Order: sequence, then C-alpha cells, then structure tokens
Amino acid sequence: MAVYTDVNLDELSAVLQRFDLGELRSSRGIAEGVENSNYLIETDKARYILTLYEKRVAAADLPFFLGLMEHLAGNSIPCPLPMHDEQGTALFELSNRPAALISYLDGVSIDQPSQGHCHQVGTALADLHAAQTGFTSVRANALSLDGWRDLAASCLQDAAKVEPNLPALITDELSFLAKCWPDADVLPSGVIHADLFPDNVFFLHGTLSGIIDFYFACNDMLSYDLAICLNAWCFNPNRQFLPAHAEALIAGYSAKRPLTRDEQDILPLLCRGAAMRFLLTRLYDWLNPAPGALVKPKDPLDYVARLKFFQTWGFP
Amino acid sequence: MAVYTDVNLDELSAVLQRFDLGELRSSRGIAEGVENSNYLIETDKARYILTLYEKRVAAADLPFFLGLMEHLAGNSIPCPLPMHDEQGTALFELSNRPAALISYLDGVSIDQPSQGHCHQVGTALADLHAAQTGFTSVRANALSLDGWRDLAASCLQDAAKVEPNLPALITDELSFLAKCWPDADVLPSGVIHADLFPDNVFFLHGTLSGIIDFYFACNDMLSYDLAICLNAWCFNPNRQFLPAHAEALIAGYSAKRPLTRDEQDILPLLCRGAAMRFLLTRLYDWLNPAPGALVKPKDPLDYVARLKFFQTWGFP
Repeated sequence: MAVYTDVNLDELSAVLQRFDLGELRSSRGIAEGVENSNYLIETDKARYILTLYEKRVAAADLPFFLGLMEHLAGNSIPCPLPMHDEQGTALFELSNRPAALISYLDGVSIDQPSQGHCHQVGTALADLHAAQTGFTSVRANALSLDGWRDLAASCLQDAAKVEPNLPALITDELSFLAKCWPDADVLPSGVIHADLFPDNVFFLHGTLSGIIDFYFACNDMLSYDLAICLNAWCFNPNRQFLPAHAEALIAGYSAKRPLTRDEQDILPLLCRGAAMRFLLTRLYDWLNPAPGALVKPKDPLDYVARLKFFQTWGFP
Repeated sequence: MAVYTDVNLDELSAVLQRFDLGELRSSRGIAEGVENSNYLIETDKARYILTLYEKRVAAADLPFFLGLMEHLAGNSIPCPLPMHDEQGTALFELSNRPAALISYLDGVSIDQPSQGHCHQVGTALADLHAAQTGFTSVRANALSLDGWRDLAASCLQDAAKVEPNLPALITDELSFLAKCWPDADVLPSGVIHADLFPDNVFFLHGTLSGIIDFYFACNDMLSYDLAICLNAWCFNPNRQFLPAHAEALIAGYSAKRPLTRDEQDILPLLCRGAAMRFLLTRLYDWLNPAPGALVKPKDPLDYVARLKFFQTWGFP
C-alpha cells in the first residue's frame, strides 16, 4: 500500500488528452500494491488506475508486465488492460517516473476466503496459464533459488531477532531446497502470476471478477504458481492449514488443467519453496522497513508456520 | 494519508443494506486525511467515502462534525453529505471503530494554486461562514493558545534538532501571542473549517467543486479561518509569500463578507497565530511520527518561514 509520489496534474491531463481518455474529473491516491504509487483516476469517459513505478520495479521489465496484461485481457482473463496513445505506446513519464494507465476493475478482495473462493481461484489460475499461448516475452524469476540465497545472506544475521531458531531453519531449508529444487523445464512451465494472493483477486457478488498486480509475473513452473496459492489462500489467520480449501483450490485448477503425476508428487516441495520465498521477502521487509511505505510490514512468522507445515505435508 | 484499519466486508455489506445504499461493488483504501482510515466505496447505486475514525479523533466530537457537514450540504455548500439509516443515525461501528459513510465528491486538489483558485477559495470560505446560520452545536478550538502551549511544552526539548534557533523562536512568539491573542467574542465568530488547505478543496474543470475534511472544524474567529487560508494558499514551494494570491483570497472573501476595520487590523496577528498552530502540529508529528501513518511527516520549517514572514506583514 503506497503513494510515494505526488502526481503533477497538468502533466496527467496532457497524457489523458494524448491517450484520448477524456477530461480529468478526479484523482485519488489509493493504498494498493507495495512497490509503486497508485491513483484511481476518473475522467468523463471512464475510470483508470494510474501507476507510477518506483525504484523497486526495474524499468526494463515494464514492457513485459504491460504486454502480459494486454495479452491476457485480450484472451478473456479479467485483468487490467493497459491504455495506449495513437502510436501504441502504453508507458509514459509522469512526475519523473515511468508510468502507465490501466483499466479499473470492479470487485472487492476477500479477507477470509471460503472453499468456494478457493475453487474459483484455482480455475482462474488455470485459465491464466492457458491464456498465455502466443505471448512470447520472457522474464526470469528473480525470486527463485538464487534470489532466496541472496535474501537469506542479507537477513541471516538479524533473523534471530525475529525468532531465535530462524537462522537455523532458513539455512537448513535452503540447503535442502538447493539439493532438490527442480529445473523449470522438467515440469510444465510458462508465465506465472507469482503473487496471486487474496489482495490481488476481486470478487463481485461472490464471483471472481478481477486479477491484478502482475508485477511479479515471470517464467517458471506452472505448478509453482499453484503452490504459491496454496500458501496464500489455504491458511486461517491462526496459521492453521485448511485442507478442504486446498482440495477446492487444486480441484478448481485440475478441472481446467489436470496436474501430471510428477507435478502432484513435487507439489509439497514447491509449497516449501513458495513458503521460503515469502518468508524471506517478508523477513527482509521486516528488518528493512521502507521509509515511505504506507503499510506495516507483514509478519514473516506467518510463513515460518507455513514452511513447517509443508515440510510434513503430502499431496491430498 | 492513511489506511490504518482493514474493513470487514461482511459488516460493511450489512451497513450498506441497513442504510439502503445498494450492493457493494468495490472498496479501495485511499490515501486521504492523516487522522483516519478512508475507503472509496462503490455500490450499484453510487460512490461513498467510508471513514473509520481512529484514536486521534474524539468519538464525542463526531456528531458535531457530521452534523456540520449535513447542515452545510443542506445549505448549498459543496461538502460531503453523511448517509443515514432509517432512524436518522449516521454513525455506526465497523471493525471495532466508529465509522460513517459520506457522499463522494468529484474534482482534484491543486498542488500550486493560481490567483483565480485563491479568489474562489475566499468566496467559498465566506459562503461556508454564512451557511452555518441555524447550526447550533458548538466545539471549542483545541488547537488555539492553550493547545499551542501544550504542544510547545512537549516539543521544545527536541525542537533544536530541527533548527538550533527553533526553541527560542517558539518561546518568544508564544509569549507575544499570549499577550495579544484576542478573545474569540471580540471579533465576528462562529464555526470555522480550521484546515482549509489545498488538499481539502477540489476543483473540476477550473471551478471549485468540493470542500472536504471537517475534522478540525470548531468555533473561533471567522477571520482566523481566513488567516489559515493565507498560510495555506499564498506561499510558493520555496516558502515565498505571493502577495497577489493573498489579495485575490481576501478579495474573494470580502466580496461576500466585508472584513470589519478591527478584523483587517488584526489579520496579520491571526496569520502569526495560524503559522504557529501549523508549525507546532507539524513539529510534533515530525518528532513523533505515527508508526501506522502512511505519509512522511510534513516539514515544520515551511511554517517557520511563514511565521517569520507574518511577523513583518501588514494588511494589504
């Protein structure tokens, strides 16, 4: 949740005119996304989300993210559609930052998802994976094994402040994952969302209506995306695993794309990797809170609990 | 700018039904107001601002603020209108906090106002002062002389960290203001907005379209409200006074309510008091940043410069 940068309204009005999006009626900073500044913009034509990309997002990756949203939106995925000028350019500069305008989606995020929500998310994830056919851009996953090692190296010294056993847990688990983490091409792979948390999914009158925040999307194992969702959707606030939620999520996914035998066997391992990824980024943000960030860092211990759970879990 | 508290959507949907405001379509945390958590809520009927009142706002004051908005909106002031249930109740509880839903206003805040904006703000302020006729609730100004003394006492020890001369400047100025600050009943008095900064005024296609954030409103001298606006609207980002802006603001106000001779004579003193008020609250927030606040504290030195300017200023 962040609004790091103020918008220059004259510049914004000029962009809206160039993109033929109508006259500005309102502009409100919204508390959404951790990495960038986001504004809900209304013109006399429609509503849009304006994003100013802050330093943590690499400018070189923006064409990948915007191209992906455009491709998926064009293939019936309910995700934001980037707006263009006449030359087809979606990226522009505003208040000295790269910026884009994307369509606004209705719906609300669910705090405590039901099994029904999980089933819909599974289906939507499989649809998203299928809809990428024809999208040829590639982006490596910066938050896979090598990225975890870097994060761990920069956090390990202070990790004991969070929990005394945390350095040992991280070291042992990373050493285990390094031995058996699969190469991405061993399993069905492609572009994954990589951050499909309840925050990033909207429901309208009970039905999934939107998927947002593609700024971690990258190429990796498709089943790793499902493993992330198992971490994100299938635990209650007391950090207890909800088996019926997990079954609903997997059933929703499998109905559209059945998991291979290998994917089923390896899913618990992928869940451990996903737990490690969010444990490490949360730990890093916990130990290094961004001065302008507009939200309390999330508790890394949520993912310690998930990691310990998945160390003992078997595919249902 | 803040979103301190997450909204419970089931509770919110129940309130929307009880208030007959339609079915929830979207809910987005917005970065608006420093004191409370604000959400832009859309239903199938209209858009609303949902405010959850956090600890810094006294619950006992809420009926005053909401009643004032209701009275002013009913008297042609373009301010938010609080929504009610059938019993006429505007306040409710949400996520364990007092909460209210008010109407959504179009328009954008102006970063760098022109003389034309200042003239419109002056006129709107006089309209606001006139429209209170018949509103009988009263709220003392907690941020007048006594409040400044309390703030100064809690900041003085650390003020030198911000600027070496600051403790002396504050002590000397407070001692001066204590000698000559007028009693509120000496000059035309009533309910004032008390925080009419550019953030709190919307313009649509160049015309003033909305006044928001009545959570500092209180009873005090009407001309003190004008003095606050002279501080808020008539300096450039380099902290230089803009005399033509000030003349436009005063002209806009005076066209609707001419200032008395006494008010003209005392206006520079009121401007010093207003500069002191914002200097002290900014200094306090600078030295005591709220952990959940979603914005960098504003620089108190902006108001050191204003105070020094108004120490030498005479009514134009």
